[in-house]
Amino acid sequence: MKKTILSALVALLLGGTAVAQDIKLAEHNDSNGMPLMNALAERHTVRSYSTQPIALDELSNLLWATYGYNRPEVKKRTAPSAVNMQEMDIYVYTTEAIYLYNAANNMLEFVTKGDYRKEISTQPHFGVAPISIVIVADYDRMKEKMKLADPATLDFYAAVDCGYVSQNIYLYATAAQLGTVACGGIDREAISKRLGLKNAKPMLAHPVGFPQE
Amino acid sequence: MKKTILSALVALLLGGTAVAQDIKLAEHNDSNGMPLMNALAERHTVRSYSTQPIALDELSNLLWATYGYNRPEVKKRTAPSAVNMQEMDIYVYTTEAIYLYNAANNMLEFVTKGDYRKEISTQPHFGVAPISIVIVADYDRMKEKMKLADPATLDFYAAVDCGYVSQNIYLYATAAQLGTVACGGIDREAISKRLGLKNAKPMLAHPVGFPQE
Repeated sequence: MKKTILSALVALLLGGTAVAQDIKLAEHNDSNGMPLMNALAERHTVRSYSTQPIALDELSNLLWATYGYNRPEVKKRTAPSAVNMQEMDIYVYTTEAIYLYNAANNMLEFVTKGDYRKEISTQPHFGVAPISIVIVADYDRMKEKMKLADPATLDFYAAVDCGYVSQNIYLYATAAQLGTVACGGIDREAISKRLGLKNAKPMLAHPVGFPQE
Repeated sequence: MKKTILSALVALLLGGTAVAQDIKLAEHNDSNGMPLMNALAERHTVRSYSTQPIALDELSNLLWATYGYNRPEVKKRTAPSAVNMQEMDIYVYTTEAIYLYNAANNMLEFVTKGDYRKEISTQPHFGVAPISIVIVADYDRMKEKMKLADPATLDFYAAVDCGYVSQNIYLYATAAQLGTVACGGIDREAISKRLGLKNAKPMLAHPVGFPQE
């Protein structure tokens, strides 16, 4: 019942005239008590989703688990990064718009209006799961911290650091009875164009939704 | 008290004449009940360790969390990998020997006798923390599954897949009040030579131990 009300709230927040603006996220909460060991035991890939929306408080938790600040006073995160580059940007594609996760202000920054989930990849789940997360590595931010690194070294750390974030998505989804799959077969050119990326690389994308039996 | 007895047991198992042989691991157990959300909240990098040994049952849990089979009937793991390549090999360096984690048989396969922790990296924690985990990507295994992939694509997925495993180490260490840090500045040539690697790449190394205040 709670879920239904929240889903309606999300539909309200993510739909209609509310679309073209930032969305304040609820503080993450610890009500999801699944032990880490159980999340690891149950982690698996899901490739079939229902279209059921994800409640906004669930999305807040998911994004915090993915790449939120777990030590906001020193701006450090749930996922590590090489020499603390924090080079990842987390985009959320919904049925209504695209948003950028702003961990510092705990909000979704409005990027553009429209349903561009299918633009991420030809894989069919992107058109079904209510949201997709696109993980982007900002190479300018990397170069600030790794001035002398060669391109292969930057690519190496960007990919490792993306893996940290991606595993957080898998584990939180498991704990929340959601499903996800990390997809590397994505249309990086279309994503970059849509998001207006410069010197940043779309790494992986994750549809996230309720598993369809 | 329990920890002291187990530590002594490990010292017994990992020392003396028992060194030059495989070690059967205990089944992982779920006695560590830290919720995922707490593990994410408390995850951080530790760079100062005590030399206190890690009990063998703790090591069993750590390795299972890192890269164990969570669905042994279909040989699938706690960490995903691109097109299910499962290309990672997990080596454990102790004060006495090096072992390869065999997830299928739940054991440590003896590799070589001796303390080679400091050979991993010049970073000082490798000589202090009682164990270090070295994550290796087997490129032959990758090529079996990704026949047409170019070298940059293989490097990309090896690094992402390493990030999954590395995050599992961080999160389990957090839940077990252990500390760890992912190090990319490692001596890949020395490691490869010591482990006899062919067409496989040492990716990251993790000292794991009790944090030193």
